[in-house]
Amino acid sequence: MPTGPLDAITDVAGVEVGQTTLIRGDNVRTGVTAILPHAGNMYRERVPGGIFIGNGYGKLTGSTQVDEMGEIETPILLTSTTSVPRAADDLISYMLSLPGNEGVLSINAIVGETNDGWLSDIRGRHIAPEDVTNAIRDAKPGPVDEGTVGAGTGTVAFGWKGGIGTASRRLPATLGGYTVGVLVQSNFGGILTINGAPVGQELGQYYLRKEAGQVEGVKDKADGSCMMVIATDAPLDVRNLKRLAARAWVGMGRTGSSASNGSGDYAIAFSTASQVRIFTSDVSTTRRTEVLTNDAMSPLFEAVIEGTEEAIYNSMLKATTVTGNGHTVEALPIDRVVTILRQHQLTK
Amino acid sequence: MPTGPLDAITDVAGVEVGQTTLIRGDNVRTGVTAILPHAGNMYRERVPGGIFIGNGYGKLTGSTQVDEMGEIETPILLTSTTSVPRAADDLISYMLSLPGNEGVLSINAIVGETNDGWLSDIRGRHIAPEDVTNAIRDAKPGPVDEGTVGAGTGTVAFGWKGGIGTASRRLPATLGGYTVGVLVQSNFGGILTINGAPVGQELGQYYLRKEAGQVEGVKDKADGSCMMVIATDAPLDVRNLKRLAARAWVGMGRTGSSASNGSGDYAIAFSTASQVRIFTSDVSTTRRTEVLTNDAMSPLFEAVIEGTEEAIYNSMLKATTVTGNGHTVEALPIDRVVTILRQHQLTK
Amino acid sequence: MPTGPLDAITDVAGVEVGQTTLIRGDNVRTGVTAILPHAGNMYRERVPGGIFIGNGYGKLTGSTQVDEMGEIETPILLTSTTSVPRAADDLISYMLSLPGNEGVLSINAIVGETNDGWLSDIRGRHIAPEDVTNAIRDAKPGPVDEGTVGAGTGTVAFGWKGGIGTASRRLPATLGGYTVGVLVQSNFGGILTINGAPVGQELGQYYLRKEAGQVEGVKDKADGSCMMVIATDAPLDVRNLKRLAARAWVGMGRTGSSASNGSGDYAIAFSTASQVRIFTSDVSTTRRTEVLTNDAMSPLFEAVIEGTEEAIYNSMLKATTVTGNGHTVEALPIDRVVTILRQHQLTK
Amino acid sequence: MPTGPLDAITDVAGVEVGQTTLIRGDNVRTGVTAILPHAGNMYRERVPGGIFIGNGYGKLTGSTQVDEMGEIETPILLTSTTSVPRAADDLISYMLSLPGNEGVLSINAIVGETNDGWLSDIRGRHIAPEDVTNAIRDAKPGPVDEGTVGAGTGTVAFGWKGGIGTASRRLPATLGGYTVGVLVQSNFGGILTINGAPVGQELGQYYLRKEAGQVEGVKDKADGSCMMVIATDAPLDVRNLKRLAARAWVGMGRTGSSASNGSGDYAIAFSTASQVRIFTSDVSTTRRTEVLTNDAMSPLFEAVIEGTEEAIYNSMLKATTVTGNGHTVEALPIDRVVTILRQHQLTK
Repeated sequence: MPTGPLDAITDVAGVEVGQTTLIRGDNVRTGVTAILPHAGNMYRERVPGGIFIGNGYGKLTGSTQVDEMGEIETPILLTSTTSVPRAADDLISYMLSLPGNEGVLSINAIVGETNDGWLSDIRGRHIAPEDVTNAIRDAKPGPVDEGTVGAGTGTVAFGWKGGIGTASRRLPATLGGYTVGVLVQSNFGGILTINGAPVGQELGQYYLRKEAGQVEGVKDKADGSCMMVIATDAPLDVRNLKRLAARAWVGMGRTGSSASNGSGDYAIAFSTASQVRIFTSDVSTTRRTEVLTNDAMSPLFEAVIEGTEEAIYNSMLKATTVTGNGHTVEALPIDRVVTILRQHQLTK
Repeated sequence: MPTGPLDAITDVAGVEVGQTTLIRGDNVRTGVTAILPHAGNMYRERVPGGIFIGNGYGKLTGSTQVDEMGEIETPILLTSTTSVPRAADDLISYMLSLPGNEGVLSINAIVGETNDGWLSDIRGRHIAPEDVTNAIRDAKPGPVDEGTVGAGTGTVAFGWKGGIGTASRRLPATLGGYTVGVLVQSNFGGILTINGAPVGQELGQYYLRKEAGQVEGVKDKADGSCMMVIATDAPLDVRNLKRLAARAWVGMGRTGSSASNGSGDYAIAFSTASQVRIFTSDVSTTRRTEVLTNDAMSPLFEAVIEGTEEAIYNSMLKATTVTGNGHTVEALPIDRVVTILRQHQLTK
Repeated sequence: MPTGPLDAITDVAGVEVGQTTLIRGDNVRTGVTAILPHAGNMYRERVPGGIFIGNGYGKLTGSTQVDEMGEIETPILLTSTTSVPRAADDLISYMLSLPGNEGVLSINAIVGETNDGWLSDIRGRHIAPEDVTNAIRDAKPGPVDEGTVGAGTGTVAFGWKGGIGTASRRLPATLGGYTVGVLVQSNFGGILTINGAPVGQELGQYYLRKEAGQVEGVKDKADGSCMMVIATDAPLDVRNLKRLAARAWVGMGRTGSSASNGSGDYAIAFSTASQVRIFTSDVSTTRRTEVLTNDAMSPLFEAVIEGTEEAIYNSMLKATTVTGNGHTVEALPIDRVVTILRQHQLTK
Repeated sequence: MPTGPLDAITDVAGVEVGQTTLIRGDNVRTGVTAILPHAGNMYRERVPGGIFIGNGYGKLTGSTQVDEMGEIETPILLTSTTSVPRAADDLISYMLSLPGNEGVLSINAIVGETNDGWLSDIRGRHIAPEDVTNAIRDAKPGPVDEGTVGAGTGTVAFGWKGGIGTASRRLPATLGGYTVGVLVQSNFGGILTINGAPVGQELGQYYLRKEAGQVEGVKDKADGSCMMVIATDAPLDVRNLKRLAARAWVGMGRTGSSASNGSGDYAIAFSTASQVRIFTSDVSTTRRTEVLTNDAMSPLFEAVIEGTEEAIYNSMLKATTVTGNGHTVEALPIDRVVTILRQHQLTK
């Protein structure tokens, strides 16, 4: 399935991404990534959303209200585990301060995370209010920075440097021509495969290597987590958005994830389609919508699987080696990866 | 079913409750209520927990990890909706600072809420770090303050002043002699019944009164939420703790709740039994437990239903009239309630 | 809230109910109740549906597909526990035989149950194919038989004879004028209250009576189950239908249910509104709908709570004493119930 | 991770598999596969179980009770979609007839399915009572027949003949030495990859081929379903069994599944460990167990992922070309597959 022009979540029209990267001193390697379903006031102009939880060992806030009400009313933030409350508080401040929200008495902040405590002083919770505000204000359409950036500044994937990655897929016009964009914060492990090639094994770094009779490395652990955000312009109801989100876990599986006990794997999907947008200014007790049928979902499911798989690869291929908090995590050695892919004739 | 000696959640041995009540100026009527499953280091000595969500329109943090891992690793806090992130951040600070937690890199803070924006300046988020720490440090066994206190300082129930309420039930020795304690933060509406008596209707204040041909009052709305915390010394696994939590919603129904769209109804149940406690210092890959069978659960279910019903009544009967934020919410007129119960011969 | 003209699920226009009552010899006291969302070919003209499970200790078939696809494609059957597969097979036969279904290769039969093994030979599975077909073919709009009839022929509630009961509520025109109808198969226990009056206690028959120091009766057990079917003409999407279904459990709580371990409590809600109907003949990949907003749900929630409560009372008040399988279960003594309600001034 | 000695679900001690294959005339290509957690009376000696639903578009019976009670009380049957009720009824007959079950009044039959309507007359529902009884009675430990057999007789995977497949993994002694066995009924589609090699694309048969500019084949559809049964001798509680089951979907993803709208993907996991077995003869209200900790789960998760992936390959590699119902589905051309794997150096 072809990618969109940017091969990024921003190929879904209206979606914007902004990031704050914090690299300070010896031990601050963290940040914030903000995904805006649209550039307007999200509280007053909401998008339908659905969340899938593959492994709930994480601190995502806002999930129960999205499940119940089916609405996303803030930008979606990604950050470091222990900074979730501060980021959520900052996000509330930002939302309350928006013109038109003067009377708002409740905000359902959506903030996901993975744990960057290996490379960063996670106990210090270094995210400040302006870091959140800046990420949101700097958000823009167009290309998205990937790798060691934003909420991916201090993360680790498959023993190498992980980070932020994005990708997109566009359905053929005969199937509606819809776009699906995925953005991930990769921080998990397993036995890395790329396009099917056993990269982790051939590079000698993978989960349970020790049990395979080899010397265990500190980077072989499969722990960590993965946050996956999916945008689409297909007009979907909440039920089918949840189903769409679930397929991200299937795509994650293709990269060799071990779906380990410690890996909190969450996927959030939303639709930007005007046919399903929710306006608080609309005082009617009913709402007209137009939604895709169940039967029309399958190509979108395939798009999410492919997009998530590629977004995870991109998060690693764009990442740089990072030293912090007394540890170094190297970037995936791209030359060697290319060699492996060529050997296996899997370069695509 | 008889109550425990205190008729409080603290009848479950080891459980402690602490509260911070903030009443300042014209418009701060809020607070924090902390429920401690035990007085020790909760991160290192966890209790099994289960969460039931009757209506997920709320901001409870920590729920997905409890669902996945089945463990509660912090005190449970209740507070005001928009202050959840600040309280969660304070709770993380407190947990990280405990002796023995120096190496901890992740904390799953459990903070529930209801919306006190009618009587308090909810946009101001007035909960300060010391308010959380004080609530936890002041926690103690013994009698629990109810009504206009802690997280219940600014809440409203059935159009009257709601707040914090608690109750307990003790099973007969032939059924194990276990204790079940419930603590609620009541902030919802409907058509109040007490012990079956139609108190709401006879006092002329209830949901949909206008539609019954009467003059609508501002207090007739059923919106709001209810947080319910259930403690027991019965040795239960996570699955049966979730089932136990679910029964709190049944008990809430008996008070006349309309379970309205805006009422985020959450119940969290945990077991204090030593047979099911989880110690992080235990390096074994297996854990021996002893748990109640499914068949033995029914009396506990009845206990939760009765305890929740009574805890909600207590939250209102102990509350005092409060003026704040330009509004006044009156306490339930106890004399008139007693008269109504007597007329209906439902005083128990 | 006022009832519809029939105070039955058939007050929702288009809904039909048909029942087969099997009373044979000494030990067959069972039957089938069929609820048809409409009289047409349900496979080709589907209604959106949502299922809530308060306690999953039951054998309802078809639930996972309704959860996933949000569609009900057969009549809903209620019967005896062990006869569910035979009834489901008969329902499939019926559906496959309908004109227009010649090419159908899959049917998601929805069959719920409660256990009538006290009064009937449940091991014998006496439901024959024609019993199912007859229930469906005899289905009609208009008044619905209640009590000892259909799937309620052999059930027991609160120690007295339970059975089929129905009720309805109509919203005021200012709230949309929608109708909500409920039909229950009551077969559970607890401490019966009617309109708030402690009928179970005053009649001396209730759960845990022995533990209250009294002589235990064989009928004091709270076990059993409850199936609840909710119809509405309000145009609801699947998410709000699930939320609507959940409120039936709240209404069940008001009758004094103990929500015991053995009580499988399921609620199925569907909408008959034309705006949300699904036609398999529609080849478009999108579907236009018009649905109620979240904010408009609360009056419907109150309607389901009240309707379920009353439907359960009706299932008992209309039931007759039944002897079967070596046991006798008496009908609720209406004169004494009326006396109790009068004493408590709760006759409404 | 190494396989067990048989590379089959029966490597988990005590587990038995029996199958009935129905190949009759032109259009009966169906059957029954029975998985027995142990050879005894399952109703009286139950195993803990957990179910994960990746896509609930299926007719699995018994799921809600397993979710609620955490117990599997019958053999697990797999069969054809429309024959589920008949198989469930036969399974109930079988269970009721067992010595010791004379007083049993309720059976939670677990019967899963996929749709074999392409190769078989699915409307005819050809499974007879003796077919179920024979599958159960013939069940035995040891090697398991794979491919075109039992419930896999008429299924299709990735456009080739699918069927029954099995595999196992054994943890190193340092990680407990536990065995995980998987058995699948494959009947779904996507873009087949084997060990990472793009077999589907290179053989020119895959989902959305037409959209890639090629001529669409009738076998390119991704519809269908997959039933996955996981056995382990690791002592797991119900919560961790559900988590274990979820990982089967990750393994399925690695084969190139598109997780399409029509693919009902279910996984059922159970533990055979004596520490967690449930005996109905045990009248105690508490039960002693010993269970694996959360932290010890990760290697088992990896085992399920690998085992499921291989079981799906085995289901296809062992299958034979089948003609039935007017259609022919060819077996995967093993020579060409081997060539492709060699080209990609992915033969393992």
